[in-house]
Parts: sequence; C-alpha cells; structure tokens
Amino acid sequence: MNAPTPSVSLKDALSRACSEIESTIDALLPMVPGDESVLLDAMRYAALGGGKRLRGFLAVEVATLFGADREAALRVAASVELLHAYSLVHDDLPSMDDDDLRRGQPSTHKQFDEAIAILAGDALQTRAFEILVEPETSTNPTVRANLALALAQASGSAGMVGGQVIDIRGEGRALPLDQVRRLHALKTGALIRYAAESGAILADVDDERRAAIVAYGRDLGTAFQVADDVLDSTATAEELGKTAGKDEASGKSTYVSLLGIDGARAEARRLSDRAREALSSFGAQADALRALADYVVERRN
Amino acid sequence: MNAPTPSVSLKDALSRACSEIESTIDALLPMVPGDESVLLDAMRYAALGGGKRLRGFLAVEVATLFGADREAALRVAASVELLHAYSLVHDDLPSMDDDDLRRGQPSTHKQFDEAIAILAGDALQTRAFEILVEPETSTNPTVRANLALALAQASGSAGMVGGQVIDIRGEGRALPLDQVRRLHALKTGALIRYAAESGAILADVDDERRAAIVAYGRDLGTAFQVADDVLDSTATAEELGKTAGKDEASGKSTYVSLLGIDGARAEARRLSDRAREALSSFGAQADALRALADYVVERRN
Repeated sequence: MNAPTPSVSLKDALSRACSEIESTIDALLPMVPGDESVLLDAMRYAALGGGKRLRGFLAVEVATLFGADREAALRVAASVELLHAYSLVHDDLPSMDDDDLRRGQPSTHKQFDEAIAILAGDALQTRAFEILVEPETSTNPTVRANLALALAQASGSAGMVGGQVIDIRGEGRALPLDQVRRLHALKTGALIRYAAESGAILADVDDERRAAIVAYGRDLGTAFQVADDVLDSTATAEELGKTAGKDEASGKSTYVSLLGIDGARAEARRLSDRAREALSSFGAQADALRALADYVVERRN
Repeated sequence: MNAPTPSVSLKDALSRACSEIESTIDALLPMVPGDESVLLDAMRYAALGGGKRLRGFLAVEVATLFGADREAALRVAASVELLHAYSLVHDDLPSMDDDDLRRGQPSTHKQFDEAIAILAGDALQTRAFEILVEPETSTNPTVRANLALALAQASGSAGMVGGQVIDIRGEGRALPLDQVRRLHALKTGALIRYAAESGAILADVDDERRAAIVAYGRDLGTAFQVADDVLDSTATAEELGKTAGKDEASGKSTYVSLLGIDGARAEARRLSDRAREALSSFGAQADALRALADYVVERRN
C-alpha cells in the first residue's frame, strides 16, 4: 500500500507532542529542596523549554502507530529527550565544542558553571535510563530491559559518544565521505534511529515491522544530518539559534564540503524519499512520520 | 545464629575477586579500531589496573552468599566498578576537584585530555547500565530491569551525583553533622549500599534478606567514609596514592573536623559493628562480608 497524500497536519501533531513531552519531562524532573536543588535547576534548564523534540516525536508517533499506551510512549519520548539534552550539555563545554549559545540561550555551563553542567549532564543520562526501567513505562519487564539496552547501544562508545570522539579527532583534517557518513551515523544517527525503534520496542511489535521502523529511522537520521550541514553553511545564527558556519571555520569535513551545496541537498532528498519508502507497508496512520521525512530536509532551523 | 570467628581469609577472597573483576572488565571493554579507539583506551585506563574493588567485591560476595551464578555476579560487579570509575574521572576534572593524581597515576584528563575524559566518563556510565540489562546478566528480565533501576537511584541526582553537588556547594563553609552525614550517604554511601544490594537483586532473594543486606551496605558505606576522613587527615600521599589533607585545606567539614580524630574513629567502629550485626541471620558463608566491615575501618589506604 502506498502512502496517500498526508491527511494529518504534521505541524499540529508536532505541536501536540511537543507540549505533551514538555509536561512529561516537567513531571519527571521534580524540584527538590536542599543544596542539590541547583542540580535539578540545571537539569530542567537543559531539558525543558526548547528544542524541536524530533527524537521524542519519533518515539511517540511510532508507539502510537503500533497502538502503545500514549502515557508510556511519552515517558519513552521524555527519556530520549533527556539523553539528547545530556549530550548537548556536554558537547557545549569549553573543552569540547566550547559553545556559549544553545537554542538562542546561554548554554548550561554559561548559565550555571562547568562543574554543575558536567554533573547535570551526568544525572540527565542516569535519569534517561531510570525512566525506561521504572515499572510505569511497561508492565512487561522484557520491554523495559530492551528499551534500556537499545538506548545504551545507541548512545555509548559504539554510538553517540563514539561519534563525538571521531568528530573531535577529525577536526582540522579532511575526512573522506565514507568516514563522514560513519561519524554521523554514530554521532547523531544512532540516537534518532533509536528514537523511532523505541516506539516499536515499547509496542512489542514483530521483527518485520521493527526492521521497517529501524530502516526509516536510519535514513531519517542521515537525512537530518545532511540537511543540518546544508543549514550550517547557508542559514544565519539568528535562524539557527546557535553559532552558524562553525563547521567550515573549524575545518571539519561536512557533506557540503564533500558534495557541494546542491549535491548535499540532493543527498538529503534521496535519503528522505527512502525513509518514506520504508513505511510503505503502513497505512495512513504513518502519515505524520512520512511528513516528518519531508520536514527534516525542508526546515530552516 | 551468631557469627563464628572468620574462617575464610578476607585477603584471599578480595584478591581472588579483584583478579576476576579485572578480567571481566577487560572482556567487557574490548578495544576497537578507528578514530574512536582513544575513547576505549581512556575507558580502560580509568577502569582497569587499580582500585580496591570494594564495590565489586560486595556485589560478588553477596551474590555468592545467596547462590547466584558467579559469572553473572562478576558482570554486576564490573558494572558497579565502571559506574564508580566514571564518577572518579568526572570528579577529578579541573572544574570539579581538579586532581592530577588517582591511585598514584595521572588522572584520566591528565593522561588524555579533558574532552576525552568527559566522554570516557559518559561512556563508562552508559556501559554500566548496558551490562546490567544485557541478557547475559540474568535470564530473568525483571532482575535485569531492577538492577538498572536500583543503580540509577543510587547514582543519579537523588544519589551519588546529588551528593557531589552538595559537596561542591559546601566547600569553604562549615556544615553541621547531620548535613555531612547526608552528603556522604548520597555521595559515596548510596553506591556502596547498592553494590551490596545488587547481589541480593541478582539472586532474587526475599524482602527480609534483601533488607538485611541493605542495612549492612548502608552502615558499611558510612563506616568507609568516616574512616576515609580519618585517613585523609592522618595518612601521607604516598600511602593514599592521592593528594592527602585536601579536605582540611579546602575548608570542608569532615567527620574529623566535627568529631575529632578519636571521635571519628569511634564512630567508624560503631558503624562497622552495626554492619556486622545486620548479618546475624547468615551463617559462616557471610564471614568475608563480616571481615570486610573490619577491614574498611582498619585499612591504611
């Protein structure tokens, strides 16, 4: 069955999910009294009030597509957003990307200090795993353990953090296209793919449907990154809410430096189309996911 | 049933467990090719080749006491040691305790650099959770999920990381005894208590035995910290393998500054005795755990 013209408005679905994810994170990071309250302040500062919630939206949409309980799906979505927030807090640190600005606001170590930013990132990672294995996420303990396992594989040394190391080591020297692909597959791709897959794990679907979602998530993640490189070289800081043109300035190999602007745009479109094709066995309920594949390559920030 | 005179040699049991835990960590952190190999290098540097393995030993001994599979127990022990290693790597960073020396060797950010140290700590935390939820740890998914949940509770914002924040915020000002107790209960106590409890979770024992082990682990952890304060104010850097007298120099409130050397020694002994009492319903198989309660207050490093 081929996808019909999207009947749902992606904007409405995104906006509804964003607001629900925000409330869920708010409830999952309650303030505490005492000297450690600054830690919760920093965790909430890093995790709330901004962001596209692309990863959380993917988790919720896939879970909903497969009939999972929405409240449980929102917990999984909140978890992946906390994991993502931890990675941004640590990436922005002076010894890493040294970025003072995040989503148009002071990054966490500028708003608080370096020590609190490191610890807030650490505790956000812990909380992401904790939420997944809490009984409220699923009555099925295999599902809880599998969600945590898949998150660890996507975010650890063989995933996001491994990609960040390759990125740091690659700065200032030219990388060939296959290494740039691998870098991004790890650094940003793995967590985006996991976000989609998490909805399928939560709904405990068969291997075939899970594989289709993984294929979708993988291509969507790469399309997102290629589009990000295009944006970084064409958009303004105001549009991005963060420093623009940084990759070029630091001598990083990007999809744009390797393929040119037009080549990178074509690559993003090709990946986006293939992501849509991976959903061909699903009905109209997957239309928001299809529209998302267009959105990630057409967005301006 | 009261404890007989220890029939097993704690030294032998510790030495055997240390070597098994070391091999297990070695196998669980395999090297990889590529630019990310430096990350695995740093993770292995931080996690292997040193340390008392107090936490890992607790996990193994309690699991063995309750008849759990030793290979599974060693995985849980390795996990808690990786979690502990991550906390040391981040604690030593310039923006935190700024310590150049750890176990007599350059700390991870001195041996590598700050960015790699932050990322190695991050990935060690992830790996600690990953190991717990991998099927090899237990065929029972509830056990796997519960191990991860208990570790998250012990190490996150309401445990170890929360305690580290209170510690940072308390530097240079006098804290009353109850706040020093709470600080250490969170910063070091929670993970030591978890280490003991993890063996009981792995063996899936009844609530009564789990509660006895938790009581033991809690008192042992506090006794360990009080003894640490005594050591910090009396031992040399050579004996400790790290900078000595740091707490006093930084104006931190410690058990020694609040109770005096003799008062702190008496407190450590009282807690150690109470930890032994918590094991009164267990037979001679718990003798190594009893001897450990003596060891933590009598050690010289």
